[in-house]
Amino acid sequence: MIYFDNGATSYPKPFSVVNAVQRSFCDFCANPGRGGYNSAMKSAEMIYNARSAAADLFNANTENVIFTSGCTYSLNAAIKGLCRLGSHFVISDLEHNSVVRPLEKLKKSGKCDYSVAKVTPDESETVNNFVNKFRKNTVAVICTLSSNVFGIMPPITKIAHEAHKNGILFILDAAQGAGYLPVDMKKTGADIICCAGHKGLFGPMGTGLLILSKDINIDTLAEGGTGSNSESLNQPVLSPDKFESGTPNVHGIAGLFEGIKFVENIKCENILMHENKIIKYIFDELKACQSIILYTDFYDGVQKSPVLSFNVKSKKSEETAALLAENGICVRGGLHCAPLAHRKMGTLGVGTVRITPSWFTDEKETEFLVNCIKKIAK
Amino acid sequence: MIYFDNGATSYPKPFSVVNAVQRSFCDFCANPGRGGYNSAMKSAEMIYNARSAAADLFNANTENVIFTSGCTYSLNAAIKGLCRLGSHFVISDLEHNSVVRPLEKLKKSGKCDYSVAKVTPDESETVNNFVNKFRKNTVAVICTLSSNVFGIMPPITKIAHEAHKNGILFILDAAQGAGYLPVDMKKTGADIICCAGHKGLFGPMGTGLLILSKDINIDTLAEGGTGSNSESLNQPVLSPDKFESGTPNVHGIAGLFEGIKFVENIKCENILMHENKIIKYIFDELKACQSIILYTDFYDGVQKSPVLSFNVKSKKSEETAALLAENGICVRGGLHCAPLAHRKMGTLGVGTVRITPSWFTDEKETEFLVNCIKKIAK
Repeated sequence: MIYFDNGATSYPKPFSVVNAVQRSFCDFCANPGRGGYNSAMKSAEMIYNARSAAADLFNANTENVIFTSGCTYSLNAAIKGLCRLGSHFVISDLEHNSVVRPLEKLKKSGKCDYSVAKVTPDESETVNNFVNKFRKNTVAVICTLSSNVFGIMPPITKIAHEAHKNGILFILDAAQGAGYLPVDMKKTGADIICCAGHKGLFGPMGTGLLILSKDINIDTLAEGGTGSNSESLNQPVLSPDKFESGTPNVHGIAGLFEGIKFVENIKCENILMHENKIIKYIFDELKACQSIILYTDFYDGVQKSPVLSFNVKSKKSEETAALLAENGICVRGGLHCAPLAHRKMGTLGVGTVRITPSWFTDEKETEFLVNCIKKIAK
Repeated sequence: MIYFDNGATSYPKPFSVVNAVQRSFCDFCANPGRGGYNSAMKSAEMIYNARSAAADLFNANTENVIFTSGCTYSLNAAIKGLCRLGSHFVISDLEHNSVVRPLEKLKKSGKCDYSVAKVTPDESETVNNFVNKFRKNTVAVICTLSSNVFGIMPPITKIAHEAHKNGILFILDAAQGAGYLPVDMKKTGADIICCAGHKGLFGPMGTGLLILSKDINIDTLAEGGTGSNSESLNQPVLSPDKFESGTPNVHGIAGLFEGIKFVENIKCENILMHENKIIKYIFDELKACQSIILYTDFYDGVQKSPVLSFNVKSKKSEETAALLAENGICVRGGLHCAPLAHRKMGTLGVGTVRITPSWFTDEKETEFLVNCIKKIAK
């Protein structure tokens, strides 16, 4: 299996991740915060350490790192935790359905409204596009760190800066990028970071992070037993307990902890350099083929993450992906749960074939991929 | 480690469960429904089979079995999925904070109201207590299969029957019980079943089920990418896609699948018989000690599941639990996230020490536990 679908979930996971998940069934197989015996304490301690490692990676405060079941949950929690009757949100035209669908539902039920700002190759123009959408009742901007389809990276720090000047919060969707694109919560100016645990952070599927900046407080999406203040019918008011009801995914968190350590060991910057080298090679090779359509230019001034979408002329993206699958290559064809981005780039009908490498992708696999694509495109 | 805290999470997990989770990092390490290549297809197929196995266990329809991150999420999804402005709920006085806290929050925000019905040893009286709380705007009764603190089992089938006669839905919280107390969705008359995957079903922590009866439709708690209808800004309308946004916990589901198969192999009834034998022995031994307080009588006509709470006179429950922990015994002391149940039984101040065995608990461990308790109680 030659895996180029790390944008969906990373594969393989580091051995330490798989090992930690397996060991968790012995070492941490007790419900943290619900028992005073040794294994429950060890379980709680591991979770604290994982929380602390995630906080370090994003330069956030430990108690404001919340473990979730995935980025979709994190985004729903962020959006619905901020939404009041009459709230307005501004999002980029690259956002994923995990941003658009909750907003669309809230809009349809009359609870909120949202506007879409266009991301262009010109950073100032992009920032202006966001500012022009601001209203008096705008509570937050939601913007992706990197388009999950085209790798385009909006100028998030500048957008966050303008949002703050207008008293508007900035929510960063780091699903595609966390782990290989360095994200410093304070420098970026993100008030909330939502990210997956199972992509660039190499954790297991079923894990995610919701990170709040120090001064922000949001409503809860779910309430329940927290193992704290158990005598009270009311949800605890302090993070992380406030946002983490029910038994946590101890096994997943044990794996994610190792994934984060793996990333910290290698460093985001090195992972990015490695992946960009691979994408650059593929890009140059495909660019030379007349029968292949590329949607972004690697060097046109737009900052871009190592996510590459293409199509073979006269072929549907699913067809190309299926032909690659026959050669043992895993890439995703079709739409990538981001209809706004596809509409923007004119690929809503045909979809795209998406290539997303990882730290584990090597040259040989990359050459094989390129050769297979070239054969299909002949 | 001698583990009597299966009410928090079951330990050990069957070898097949641990093995399946580990294998999932190779066999199913691809995002189901997001790729047409082999491992993504295998991943989707495994999830379908797991869904089907869960449906068989509860006599439900496969497409109405929804995988969640735990029972807390399932209950929040059920409650908030049904709640409209002005809705009224009726719950038992044994409910967990995962039922009470969401309702309390909705009540405080003026969205809904709820009433608490008293469960007594007399079944008819209990049913009447529920019926007396019904209002014109009551949308659902929420009732536990078995108290997570005292093992008391309300007459759910009769309560559900009365609810239906009044056009009211019945939500069953099967967190404590699923796996050792047989639950037939159709015979019970439950419209929604919420349960944990990591307790009696022997799955990993971080898994749960939300099961809807055929004719019921509820609103979504979270929306996002589903890998289906990706061109649409709207959430799909059909279950399970409607309720399963984002990357599923593939590893957890692979483990839960094996847990369900394990239960189906042994049969709920046999697990219950085994656990009840253990609890009966402990109960009889502790009943003979004057310095021990028991809160329920095993044979007083109240149907009871194998969950036993006790206290040593003159000792706080946490103190007794800590002394048992010194002997390598894992039990939970304090409050068990169920303040209503503690208030009912007069243990809100002192808490209780809870003993919850599993299929894997043996006689020798049980005798050791009893001897340790007796020494502490001397």
